[in-house]
Amino acid sequence: MDILEVTIKQLCHELVECDKSPLSSKTNNSALFFVVDVGASNSRFGFSARGGSKVYIRFVKVSVNSIVALIAAFNAFAQQIGEAVCKRIVAATLNLPGPVQGAVGGPISNYLGSTSEEKILYLSALPASLCPPHHTVMLNDLEACAYGVVATHHFKIFSKYFTSLWKGTINPETGNAQGLSTGNCVVVAPGTGLGIAVVQYHAFSGKYTVIPLEFGHTSVQSETDRKFVDAYKSDLKRGDYAPEYDDICSGRGLERLYAFVLSEKGNSTSQKATAKEISDLARNDDPVAVEALALYHKFLMRVCSQMAIGFIPHTFVLCGDNVVHNKYFYERKGAVDTMKQQMLDHSCERYGFMSKPSMLRQSAFGNLNLLGCMYVCEGAARKESKL
Amino acid sequence: MDILEVTIKQLCHELVECDKSPLSSKTNNSALFFVVDVGASNSRFGFSARGGSKVYIRFVKVSVNSIVALIAAFNAFAQQIGEAVCKRIVAATLNLPGPVQGAVGGPISNYLGSTSEEKILYLSALPASLCPPHHTVMLNDLEACAYGVVATHHFKIFSKYFTSLWKGTINPETGNAQGLSTGNCVVVAPGTGLGIAVVQYHAFSGKYTVIPLEFGHTSVQSETDRKFVDAYKSDLKRGDYAPEYDDICSGRGLERLYAFVLSEKGNSTSQKATAKEISDLARNDDPVAVEALALYHKFLMRVCSQMAIGFIPHTFVLCGDNVVHNKYFYERKGAVDTMKQQMLDHSCERYGFMSKPSMLRQSAFGNLNLLGCMYVCEGAARKESKL
Repeated sequence: MDILEVTIKQLCHELVECDKSPLSSKTNNSALFFVVDVGASNSRFGFSARGGSKVYIRFVKVSVNSIVALIAAFNAFAQQIGEAVCKRIVAATLNLPGPVQGAVGGPISNYLGSTSEEKILYLSALPASLCPPHHTVMLNDLEACAYGVVATHHFKIFSKYFTSLWKGTINPETGNAQGLSTGNCVVVAPGTGLGIAVVQYHAFSGKYTVIPLEFGHTSVQSETDRKFVDAYKSDLKRGDYAPEYDDICSGRGLERLYAFVLSEKGNSTSQKATAKEISDLARNDDPVAVEALALYHKFLMRVCSQMAIGFIPHTFVLCGDNVVHNKYFYERKGAVDTMKQQMLDHSCERYGFMSKPSMLRQSAFGNLNLLGCMYVCEGAARKESKL
Repeated sequence: MDILEVTIKQLCHELVECDKSPLSSKTNNSALFFVVDVGASNSRFGFSARGGSKVYIRFVKVSVNSIVALIAAFNAFAQQIGEAVCKRIVAATLNLPGPVQGAVGGPISNYLGSTSEEKILYLSALPASLCPPHHTVMLNDLEACAYGVVATHHFKIFSKYFTSLWKGTINPETGNAQGLSTGNCVVVAPGTGLGIAVVQYHAFSGKYTVIPLEFGHTSVQSETDRKFVDAYKSDLKRGDYAPEYDDICSGRGLERLYAFVLSEKGNSTSQKATAKEISDLARNDDPVAVEALALYHKFLMRVCSQMAIGFIPHTFVLCGDNVVHNKYFYERKGAVDTMKQQMLDHSCERYGFMSKPSMLRQSAFGNLNLLGCMYVCEGAARKESKL
C-alpha cells in the first residue's frame, strides 16, 4: 500500500501532469476513485487507483468541524481539482464517525451545533461531480476500517499492518497475523470513542462482508470494579445508568481512570492529565499512568469478551493510531498475559469460548479507513446502488 | 406457506405416487430440497419444493438426543425414501442448536454425552445421498430462523406471521409488520435458551444477509435488579460471574424467576413449577406467575436494549412457539407499555437510539427454521460451496 498525505498543489500535479503517478491522466487507464475519511476535527479527501497490483492513495487534509463547512470543503475541492479530473471519477466512498443508514450519516458527535441539520450528513448534499450518483457509498468509520482490514488481506499486506498478541484455540495459525481466517473477525478501535465492527466470513461462498456496530455503547458490566464504575456513574449524571464502554475505553476514559488511580493512591484528583500526557507518562514508567492504562485495557478486554461470545470470531484486531502508539505497553513484561487473563474472565470460558479467538494488534501506521473506502469503491464502480 | 408434519408413509406417497403434491416425481419438474431442523430432543426431516410461487414443505418428526442416533436416523431416512428420491435432491440445508463454523456444528448442549464426538456434528458424517456434496449448508438454528424471517418477506407472507407490539421512530411503517425494512432486523427467540441472530440490510445492493450470534450468553447487566441477579449468581455456582441472559430468558430462567417471586412474597421456594405450568398459571391470572413472566420480559427487553444500540436495527422480531403461546401476556393491559419503557431504559436513549426500532412478535405458529432452510437451499442449488 502506497498511501501519503500531500498538498492540494501536489495532488493536482499528480492527477494531471505527472508522468509516473498511477493517478495521472497520462498513465491512468484504470478507474479513478474518490475516497474520503471524515473525522471529528480533521477530514481527508483523496484519490486512489491501482498501480499494477498495488493500491495507491494520495490525500489532502481538511480541517472542518461542521456539516456546513464540510460541504463547502467538498465544493471547493471539486473546483480545485477541476472538471476534467472529476469526469474521470467512476466511484466514491466516504466514511464518517457516526451511525450510517443508507444515504444518511450521523449524528457526528464532535461537530458543532445541536440540530440534526448541523450534525447529519446526507449523500444528496454532496457535489455529484465528486460523488457519482448510484456509485457513491457512505460508510461508518469503523465499517471503513473493517473493509480496510479485508483489503490488507485481499492485497496480501496483512502482515505488514498486524502482529500477534496471542493465538487462539479455534484456528491457531490465525494468530500468526498472516491474513484473515475462515471465520469472523472483530475489529476494535479505541480512539475518541470506542469503535467496533465485524468482518463476517461466509463459509458457503468464501466471501467476507462487514457489519458496522455501535457496541462501544454497551453498558459496562462488572462484578469486580464496582468502585470505579460507581464513581464514574455518579460523575456522568445519567441517573442510574452504568457508564458505557465508550466512556472508559476512549481518550476521556483514560483521563478519568488516571484521576481515579491517583485518588486511590491518596493524591488529589485535581492533578489532571490529558490522554496524550498519560500515554507519555506510562511510556516513561510512571506507575499511576501505567495502572490507568492497564485498567483501560482491562475494560477493553471485558467488552472484547462479550463480543467473543456474541460473534464467536476467529480473530480480534485492535486497530487505530492509539494501538500503534501503545506498542510499548503491549511489550511491557506481563501486560499481554494479564490482558489474556482478562479476556478469558467470562462465564462462557467454561465451554472454552473465550480461548477460541486469536488477538492481534495494529503495528504500523496507515489509514485503514481510506484503504477500506478504496476497496469498497472497486465494488461500487462495477454495480449500481439501490439507494 | 404450506408446511405440515406427516408420517413417513405419507411422505413417501407424496414424493413418489401422489398426483397433486409439488414434491411428487409425477409433478415436480423443479428442484427438490432436503431440509432438516435439529432440535434438542426432536428433529424434523423434510422435503421442500415450490408449488408455483408458494413454498411447500412436508416433514416427519424424529426423536433423537445424541449425534450417533441422529446420524443413524439420517441413514434410516435415506433408506426409507429410497434411491430414486435421493437422486432428485439438488440441495440440502440443516440447522442445529449450537454455534456452527463452516461444516462443523455444535456442541449441541442438550445432547447426551460429554466428549466432542458425542456433542458435535460434522457435515462429513452425513449421507451424501441426502446431503449433496458442495450443495449442503449447515446453519445455526437462529440463523435458519432469521433466514425464515427473510423468506416470509421474500414470499410476501410476513404479515401472516408477525404482528406489531409498537412502532419505532426510524421507520414507523415497519411497525405495521408488512415486511422487512431497509435496515437491520434483530431476531430474538426465547426458548430452551435465548437465541439471537441479525438480518443485515445492505443499503448499496438492497440485499439481506444473516449473521448468527450467541449474544444470549452476554453477562446480565443490571443496576436495579441486583437482588435477583445476586441470588441467581449464587445458585449458578460459577464464581463471581453474573448470570447470562440465556439463564433468565429461557424455560429454566422462568422457573427460577417464579421461585424468586414466590420467596419475595414470603412463600416457600420449594413450591416449584415448570415453565409450561407457570405459563398456564399466568394465563389464568395467577399473580406470582404473571409477575415472573413480567420479569422474564424485563430481562428480555434489557438484552434487546443492548442489541438496539449494537446493531441500530429498524426492527426487532420476537420469534418462536413461546412467543406465539404468550399472546395472552402481550394482550394484558399495560404489558406492552411496560415492555416498551424497559426497552427505552438505556443510557443511549438520551440520543433516542432505543426509540428507533419497531418491535414485532410472531403471532402464528409455523416452523420458520425449515422455511429458512428452504430459502437457503435455493441459493445452495445454484452455487457450489467453498467448504
